[in-house]
Amino acid sequence: MNAILLISCPDRKGIVYTVTDFIFKNNGNILDADQHIDDQSNIFFMRLEWSLVDFGLGKDDIIPAFSAIAERFCMQWSIVFSDQTPNLAIYVSRHLHCLQDLLARYQSGQLRCHIPLIISNHKEAERIARLSDMDYFYVPITPDNKIEQEQRQTDILAKYRIDVIVLARYHQIFTGEFVARHENKMINIHHSFLPAFVGKKPYNQAYEKGVKLIGATSHYVTGQLDQGPIIEQDTVRISHRDALTDLVRKGEDLEKVVLGRAVRFHLERKVLVYNNKTVVFD
Amino acid sequence: MNAILLISCPDRKGIVYTVTDFIFKNNGNILDADQHIDDQSNIFFMRLEWSLVDFGLGKDDIIPAFSAIAERFCMQWSIVFSDQTPNLAIYVSRHLHCLQDLLARYQSGQLRCHIPLIISNHKEAERIARLSDMDYFYVPITPDNKIEQEQRQTDILAKYRIDVIVLARYHQIFTGEFVARHENKMINIHHSFLPAFVGKKPYNQAYEKGVKLIGATSHYVTGQLDQGPIIEQDTVRISHRDALTDLVRKGEDLEKVVLGRAVRFHLERKVLVYNNKTVVFD
Amino acid sequence: MNAILLISCPDRKGIVYTVTDFIFKNNGNILDADQHIDDQSNIFFMRLEWSLVDFGLGKDDIIPAFSAIAERFCMQWSIVFSDQTPNLAIYVSRHLHCLQDLLARYQSGQLRCHIPLIISNHKEAERIARLSDMDYFYVPITPDNKIEQEQRQTDILAKYRIDVIVLARYHQIFTGEFVARHENKMINIHHSFLPAFVGKKPYNQAYEKGVKLIGATSHYVTGQLDQGPIIEQDTVRISHRDALTDLVRKGEDLEKVVLGRAVRFHLERKVLVYNNKTVVFD
Amino acid sequence: MNAILLISCPDRKGIVYTVTDFIFKNNGNILDADQHIDDQSNIFFMRLEWSLVDFGLGKDDIIPAFSAIAERFCMQWSIVFSDQTPNLAIYVSRHLHCLQDLLARYQSGQLRCHIPLIISNHKEAERIARLSDMDYFYVPITPDNKIEQEQRQTDILAKYRIDVIVLARYHQIFTGEFVARHENKMINIHHSFLPAFVGKKPYNQAYEKGVKLIGATSHYVTGQLDQGPIIEQDTVRISHRDALTDLVRKGEDLEKVVLGRAVRFHLERKVLVYNNKTVVFD
Repeated sequence: MNAILLISCPDRKGIVYTVTDFIFKNNGNILDADQHIDDQSNIFFMRLEWSLVDFGLGKDDIIPAFSAIAERFCMQWSIVFSDQTPNLAIYVSRHLHCLQDLLARYQSGQLRCHIPLIISNHKEAERIARLSDMDYFYVPITPDNKIEQEQRQTDILAKYRIDVIVLARYHQIFTGEFVARHENKMINIHHSFLPAFVGKKPYNQAYEKGVKLIGATSHYVTGQLDQGPIIEQDTVRISHRDALTDLVRKGEDLEKVVLGRAVRFHLERKVLVYNNKTVVFD
Repeated sequence: MNAILLISCPDRKGIVYTVTDFIFKNNGNILDADQHIDDQSNIFFMRLEWSLVDFGLGKDDIIPAFSAIAERFCMQWSIVFSDQTPNLAIYVSRHLHCLQDLLARYQSGQLRCHIPLIISNHKEAERIARLSDMDYFYVPITPDNKIEQEQRQTDILAKYRIDVIVLARYHQIFTGEFVARHENKMINIHHSFLPAFVGKKPYNQAYEKGVKLIGATSHYVTGQLDQGPIIEQDTVRISHRDALTDLVRKGEDLEKVVLGRAVRFHLERKVLVYNNKTVVFD
Repeated sequence: MNAILLISCPDRKGIVYTVTDFIFKNNGNILDADQHIDDQSNIFFMRLEWSLVDFGLGKDDIIPAFSAIAERFCMQWSIVFSDQTPNLAIYVSRHLHCLQDLLARYQSGQLRCHIPLIISNHKEAERIARLSDMDYFYVPITPDNKIEQEQRQTDILAKYRIDVIVLARYHQIFTGEFVARHENKMINIHHSFLPAFVGKKPYNQAYEKGVKLIGATSHYVTGQLDQGPIIEQDTVRISHRDALTDLVRKGEDLEKVVLGRAVRFHLERKVLVYNNKTVVFD
Repeated sequence: MNAILLISCPDRKGIVYTVTDFIFKNNGNILDADQHIDDQSNIFFMRLEWSLVDFGLGKDDIIPAFSAIAERFCMQWSIVFSDQTPNLAIYVSRHLHCLQDLLARYQSGQLRCHIPLIISNHKEAERIARLSDMDYFYVPITPDNKIEQEQRQTDILAKYRIDVIVLARYHQIFTGEFVARHENKMINIHHSFLPAFVGKKPYNQAYEKGVKLIGATSHYVTGQLDQGPIIEQDTVRISHRDALTDLVRKGEDLEKVVLGRAVRFHLERKVLVYNNKTVVFD
C-alpha cells in the first residue's frame, strides 16, 4: 500500500526538507515526488507518493503525525491511501461517445475507481448501462422539476457514496448549491478550446468563426458556466474541407482523449487547484 | 510563365467543365487545380494554375476572354501572372522575432515578393533594416499625431507601390479608413488562439486563465480588433511548469511559423475570403 | 444516389476537361472533386463524386460509357455507387481497444459498411462480439495449422462476402498468398511511427531508444512486414516521466484514432495507392 | 547567483532527504527541484537549483562539502554556478536556416552562453558571421585533409575555450577521437524523426516512403551516425499535396525549433544522459 500526500502552501525555506525528513525518519521509500513553485503567487505545491511497506507509522497514525508539520507551514493538504478506491458516477445526455470511451478505459483497468451508476436526462444510454452491468437512473429535467430532480440525484449519489462526478456530455446546468457541494469533484468536458466558444453549440460557433483548429477542454465545474479550472485541453487541425459534421467527428475524438486524461489525472490525485487554475503533476 | 485564376461564385452545374474547357481549348496545361464547395452557403471556390507555354491567348487577351465566362456564372475572380511580384511592407514595433524570421525566409527565397521597406513606431528595428539593405521609416505614433502619421505612411506605401502589408507584431491600431483601403491585404499576427484572448497582453491573459495550450493566429485586419478572417493558426502545449516568460518564448516560436505560413499562402494566391473567413488551398 | 470515380493515369493535357465534360454533358452535378499530380512520377490522380439525380445515364450504362475515356488516357480507374455498402471483417488478438473503438464508430454510423463478423486467434473478444450481435470465429494459430486455418478463414470470408479486412491489433503473419488475394484491401494498425520500430514490441523498442514522441501507423498489408503503403499516421509527445505502461496507454489512444481514420478513408473511397504509397483525398 | 546540482545514482532511501538537508542546513533557498526514478534501471536523477544569497558555504567550499554526500550514494554529479557562461561554437555547411535561427535566439537573450565563432566547410555563412560580429573559420574538408583539418578545429576550439559545439546542419562526419573528446557536448540536428531515415537525404527518404508526418531530431553526437542520445524531437503533418520542396520547407521550420529547444535545455543544465538516452527536466 502507498500513501499520496498533496500540499499547497506559501513558499518558504525548508518545506521539502521537512517533508522528506518526515518520510525518511519513519523509514518510508519515496516512489514519486513532484513539486512546483508558482512564481507570481509564491505558492508551493507538492505531490509525494511513498510506500507504506516497513513504514514506521501505522495508517491511522500518519495523518495526526503529519498535522503538526502541516500547521507549521500553513498547508492545505490531504493524504490518501492506495486502498481507497473512489466511487465515480457518470452523467450523460444523448451523445454517448465519451461514455463509451470512459467505460472501455474503466473495463481495461486504466481508471482506478468504481463506477456503479450512470445518470441521464435521456434514455439513449440505458442499453449501454445494462450491457455494462451498471445501474442506470433516468432523471429527466424540465424547467419545472429541476430542483426536485436535483434532490433526487443527491439522494442517489449519497446512496452510492459517490466521490467524483463526470459529466460526459451532460447538457443540463446545475444549481449553484449542487455545484458548491461538489467543488473540485465534478469534471466536465466542453467541446471547444476554452475560453473560446463558451456555452451552446461550440462546433457551430467554431465553424462560423472559421478557426483553423478546434479543441476540447476538461475542467472542474464551478458556478460560472464553462469557466472552472482547466484540467486538460487539446486541439486538432481542421480546414475549409471540413464540413460541420467533420468538425463534430474530429472533435469527438478529441473529447474522448481529453476527458479520459482529465479523469485519470483526478483519480491518481495529480491535480491541485488554486486561483481558478490547476497544477497537474502528469 | 504561369497564370493563376481565383474564383468564388454561387455553385451550379458546369463551372468546372466550363473553366477547364477554356484552358483546354486554348491548349493550356493545368499545373495545379483545387476547388471547394461550402455546403452551408453553397458557394463554389476554385484556384487554377496553368502554364502559358503554348497557350493560345496572349497575356493581354486572357482577362478579356475569361470575362464572358465570369459574367455568366456571377464570379468574383482574379487572374494574376507569375511574373508579377508583389511589393510587401513590414510593420513592426519592439518585438523583432517575427521580422527577423520573415527576413530570413525572404532571403532564402521562400517568399515570392519584394520587401523594400520596414515601417516602425520604434527604433529597435533600424539596425536590422540597415543590415538587410532595406529602407527604414521611423513613424512614432502619439494620440495627437495619429491621423497625420497615417497619412505619412500612406504616402510612403504609395511611393513604394506596396501591395501587401504585414504587421509583424506592430502594436498600433489603424483608423477605419486606413484599414478599409487595405482590405484583405493587411496581414496581422496575434499572439493567441483567437477568438480567445483578444486585445492586449494575450500571454498574460492565457497565464491567468490557466490554459494548457497557447496559440498564435494570423488574420487579415478588419475594422474590428482581432476579428478579421483567420488565415492560419497553431497551438503548442504548456504546463504549470511554464512561467509567463516561458509562454512568451514558446509563443514566439509559434508566431514566427504561423505568420510565415500565412504570408506565403497570401503571396502564392492560395487564400480566398468569404463571410469573414477563408478558404486556404494549401 | 451518388457515383464515385477514382482515376490514376499518366498526366497529360485535357484529362480534367474530358472527365468533367462527361459529367456535364450527361447533366451530372459534381458534389466533390479533388485531383493531384505527382511531380516526380508525373502521375495524375482524381476523385470525383457526383449525384445521379437527373443523370443522363442509367447506373448500368455509366461504366461502359466511361470505358472509352479511360482507355484513351490509359487510366487505372473504378466507379462505385453509394448504394453499395462494403462488408468488413475485423481481426483481433488480445488487445481489444481498437476493436472496441471501431465498433463504437460503427454503431454511431461513422463507418459506411456492414461488419458481420470478428475473427480472432484468442478468446478475449468473444464477449464483445456477442454483446454487439456479431458472429465470432475462434481460429487459433499454431506453427503446424497455419495453412489450414488460413483456408478456413478464406472460406469464412467468402461466405460473408467480405470486401475489407481490418487487422485491429491482430498479431499473426499471413502467408504471401493470403496477402496477395487482399491487395489494398487489408488494413493494419502498427503501434509505431513507421518506418521506425518495425516488428515486435514497438513500444519497448521506443522506450529503449529514448524517443521523445511515439506514433501509430495504419497501412495496407503487403508481403513485406510493416512495409505496406501508409494510409495514416500520428504522433504524441512522451517524456522521461512516462514509464513503458504510459507509452502503451498513450499509444493506444493514438492507435484508435489513426485506425479509425484510415478505415473511414478507405470506406469513403478516398485512398489511391501507387509506388507503395498513397494519395488520401481527405 | 544560483547553484545548479545534477545527480544520477542508484535509487535508495534518503537521497532527497539528504540533499535537501544539505541545502536547508546551510540556509539555501531552493528555486527549482525536479527528480525522476527510472523504473527499469532503478536509477535516480535530480536537478536542483538554489540561491546562494545567504548560503552558509562560500562558492569554493560547496563542491568539497557536497563530495562526501555524493560518495555515500555513489553519485555521478556536477555543480555549476550561474555566473559561469559556457562558450559555444556553431558548425554549419550550406543550409543556413538553423544558424540564423540560433543567432536570433542568441541576440534576443534566449540562450545563456557566449557564441564567439562559426566554423564551416563552406563559404555561404561568412556574411552572416560578419554581420553578427563573430569570428568565422573556413575549414574545407576533403577525404585527404580530414585529420589535419580536425586538428586545426581542435586548436581553434581550444583557443576560444569552447564548451559546447552545435552542428547546425553541418554535413561532415568527425573521427571517433574527435567525437569522444566532446562526449555529451556536441549537439546535432538531424532532419528526420530518428531512428527513421538515418544518414543522407532524409527528406528524400521520407518522400519515397510516403510517410504522413515528417520530423526533426536533436541529439548528442556519438561514434555511431545519428544514433546518439535524443534530446528533443518533433513532427509536422504532410500530405500527398506536399512536393519534396514542401517537405524541406516544413522540415526546416521544425529543425529550427527542435534545435533551439535542445540547445537551451543543454545550456540550462536540464539534460542528463544515461543508457544512450536522456532525462530532460524541461
